[in-house]
Amino acid sequence: MKINGIPYRSIWMEPGNLAAFFIFDQRELPHRLVVEKISTVEEAGIAIKEMHTRGAPMIGMTAAFGLYLAAQAHGDAPGLNDALQHAGKMLNATRPTAVNLAWAVGKQLSHVSGHGGSNAQICEALLANANLLADEDAATCRSIGVHGLELIREIAARKNGAPVNILTHCNAGWLACVDYGTATSPMYLAHDAGIPIHVWVDETRPRNQGARLTAFELGQHGIPHTVIADNTGGHLMQHGMVDICFVGADRVTRAGDAANKIGTYLKALAAKDNDVPFYVCLPSSTFDWGIRDGVREIEIEQRGDDEVKYMEGIDAEGKSRTVLITPADSPAANFGFDVTPARLITGIITERGVSAADETALLRLYPEHR
Amino acid sequence: MKINGIPYRSIWMEPGNLAAFFIFDQRELPHRLVVEKISTVEEAGIAIKEMHTRGAPMIGMTAAFGLYLAAQAHGDAPGLNDALQHAGKMLNATRPTAVNLAWAVGKQLSHVSGHGGSNAQICEALLANANLLADEDAATCRSIGVHGLELIREIAARKNGAPVNILTHCNAGWLACVDYGTATSPMYLAHDAGIPIHVWVDETRPRNQGARLTAFELGQHGIPHTVIADNTGGHLMQHGMVDICFVGADRVTRAGDAANKIGTYLKALAAKDNDVPFYVCLPSSTFDWGIRDGVREIEIEQRGDDEVKYMEGIDAEGKSRTVLITPADSPAANFGFDVTPARLITGIITERGVSAADETALLRLYPEHR
Repeated sequence: MKINGIPYRSIWMEPGNLAAFFIFDQRELPHRLVVEKISTVEEAGIAIKEMHTRGAPMIGMTAAFGLYLAAQAHGDAPGLNDALQHAGKMLNATRPTAVNLAWAVGKQLSHVSGHGGSNAQICEALLANANLLADEDAATCRSIGVHGLELIREIAARKNGAPVNILTHCNAGWLACVDYGTATSPMYLAHDAGIPIHVWVDETRPRNQGARLTAFELGQHGIPHTVIADNTGGHLMQHGMVDICFVGADRVTRAGDAANKIGTYLKALAAKDNDVPFYVCLPSSTFDWGIRDGVREIEIEQRGDDEVKYMEGIDAEGKSRTVLITPADSPAANFGFDVTPARLITGIITERGVSAADETALLRLYPEHR
Repeated sequence: MKINGIPYRSIWMEPGNLAAFFIFDQRELPHRLVVEKISTVEEAGIAIKEMHTRGAPMIGMTAAFGLYLAAQAHGDAPGLNDALQHAGKMLNATRPTAVNLAWAVGKQLSHVSGHGGSNAQICEALLANANLLADEDAATCRSIGVHGLELIREIAARKNGAPVNILTHCNAGWLACVDYGTATSPMYLAHDAGIPIHVWVDETRPRNQGARLTAFELGQHGIPHTVIADNTGGHLMQHGMVDICFVGADRVTRAGDAANKIGTYLKALAAKDNDVPFYVCLPSSTFDWGIRDGVREIEIEQRGDDEVKYMEGIDAEGKSRTVLITPADSPAANFGFDVTPARLITGIITERGVSAADETALLRLYPEHR
C-alpha cells in the first residue's frame, strides 16, 4: 500500500543485493519511517522477538527470509541441514503464539528437505521459496479483501452515500503482512473502489499497535479514520456508530475460536450485544486444525510489565521519550492475546471466502482438514 | 484512607483558616503528592473543569465548599442570593455528566434559601453544611463498604485462604470521595478485616485514573494489586481469575442502568459472559430518578482529542513529560462515559444495602421515589 503516495511492501530485497532483506522498524512508527536491514538469521530472530516487526504473516515472512540468510551464511561448509534445523528452532522460539512462525519455518525446511543439490542451490531454493511465500501472502491478503469488500458494499448500499463505519482492533494491516493486510484489506479495496468508509481505530494497549500502525497506514493511504481508546467501542456500537468490525487473528481453531490481540474478545461481546457484524480476517495458514477449544487450548503469551507501566512517544521537539504512567512500585500484568469464542463471530474471512465460525462450515471451505 | 501510613481525607480545611479549603491535585498523582489550596469559587470551578479533582462525590464536595467561598468573597455587599445563584450556575456548567454536581449545588442553595440572617450567618451556614455533606459522604461510603464486604466475605469463605480477586475500572476510590471511596470501600474494609484480597486495576484509558489513582490508593494502603490494560479483563474472567467486579457510577437511572467511565460496559459484558458477579457501588445521590433508559437518555460528555493522542508520565529523571502516541495528523474521539444496561449488573450497592438492578427492587430500597 502507499506511504506518502509511494507504493510499498512491508518486506523486500533490493535488486542486486542478495546479502540482506529489508523491513520497516515498526517500533519507530508512526513518528519516523525507519527501514531496517536484516543481514543474518540472528538479526531476523531479534527483529521478531523484540517486535521490530510483528503481525502473524510478517513474523512468518521474516523467519522465511531469515532461513535463507542462515543458508547463505553457512556457505559451502558441511552440515547445512543441521544448521537450518538449528536456525528453525531458534526462530520458532522467538514468539510463542503465532502459528505462522512455525508454518513458515516448516515450509522452508520441507522445501529443501532431501534436496540433492549443493549448498548454493539450497540457498537459492530458500530465497526463491521465500519470495514465493511473500507473493502468495500478498495475493492471499488481496483475496481476503475481495471477499470482505462485498460485505462493505452491501452495507454501503443501505447508507445512501454516508460512510460505512468500520471498527478494528490492533494492526492486522499491511505492515503486519506483505501487502493489503488481513483486516484492513477490505478497507483498502473499498476505499480504492470509491466506497466512502470511516474506520474507528482501537489504540490497542499496551503496545498501541492501532494508534501507531493502523492509524499510520490508513492515514498514509488516505482513508478517513479516528483513533479511540480501547474502552470506547462498546459505547459506539450501542449508539449505531459502528456498521461492521474487522479484526485479524493470530490463531484460529477448527471450531472457529480466534486468538487475537488482547481485548478482541471484549469488542466481540459488544458487537454481539448490539447486532453489529463481527468478522475475523485471516490467511488459511493461521488455522490451527489440531485444536477446537481456543479458550482452553491456546497458550497466551505473557510479556513484561514494562509495556503496561511505561508509554513511549515523542515530545514536542520530536524526541522519542518513554514515560512511567503508574506508581513506580505497582506491579502490572501483560497478557498479549485473548480468545474470542466462535459463538461471538459472525464470520471468518479467508482467501477462500467467507465462512460461518463453526467447524462444519469451516470444513466445507477446507475439506482437506475433515 | 492512608498515604504513607498517615490517614487523610481527600478534601479538608485547616484549623483556624476559614479562607480556603484543600484538595489533592490529582493530575500530579501517582508521581507527586501535591496539595492544592482553593481560595475562590472560581478556583473551585477550574479544579472541577480541569480535573484537578474528579469523581462524582468529590466534584459535589468541591462545589459545596466552593459556594461557601463565594459567599465569603461577597462579604457584606447586597445581592448575596444572586451571587450564589450565579456561582451555582457556573459550577453546574463545569462538567455535564456528574449528577452529584447539581445535587451538591442544590443542597447548598436550598440550605440558605429564605435564610433570614446576615451575609455572615449565611456564609457560616454554607460552611457548616459543606462540612456536614462531607461527613455524610464519608459515612455513606463506609456503609457501601460494609455491604460490599459481606459479598467479599462470602467468596473468601469458598477460597480456603486464597486471595479474593477483584476487578475494578477507573477510580471510584477515596480520592474521588471524601474517604473510603465507593467501589474501593469494600476492598479497604475487607483488607482491614484481614481478608486476603488482590485487585486487578484497569488502567482506564484515556486518562489512566486506574493506573494513576486507584493503583496509588491501593498501594499506599497496602492492598495487593496489579495494573492491567483495559483490554485484559475479559481474558482474566474467561480463566477464572476474577471473583467479583466492583465499579463506581456517575449516574444511575431508576431502572438501574449505570453511566460510568468509558469501558465499564465492556467489562460488564465480559462478567455476564463468564458468570462473574458485577456490582455497581454508589451513594444514593448518584441516582437520577427522573430517567429510565440510560443508553438513550444520559448525555455522554465528549472531551478533547488530546487526551487520547498524548500521554503524560514521568521520565527516568522524574520529570513530567507529555508524549504524542498517535500520528500527529490522525484525529481521535474521546467519549468520557458509557452506559451499562441494568441487565448486565448483578447488584447495586448503596449505603442502604444491596439491590438487584431493576426498578422494582430499587424502589423497595427507595420507597420515597415510587
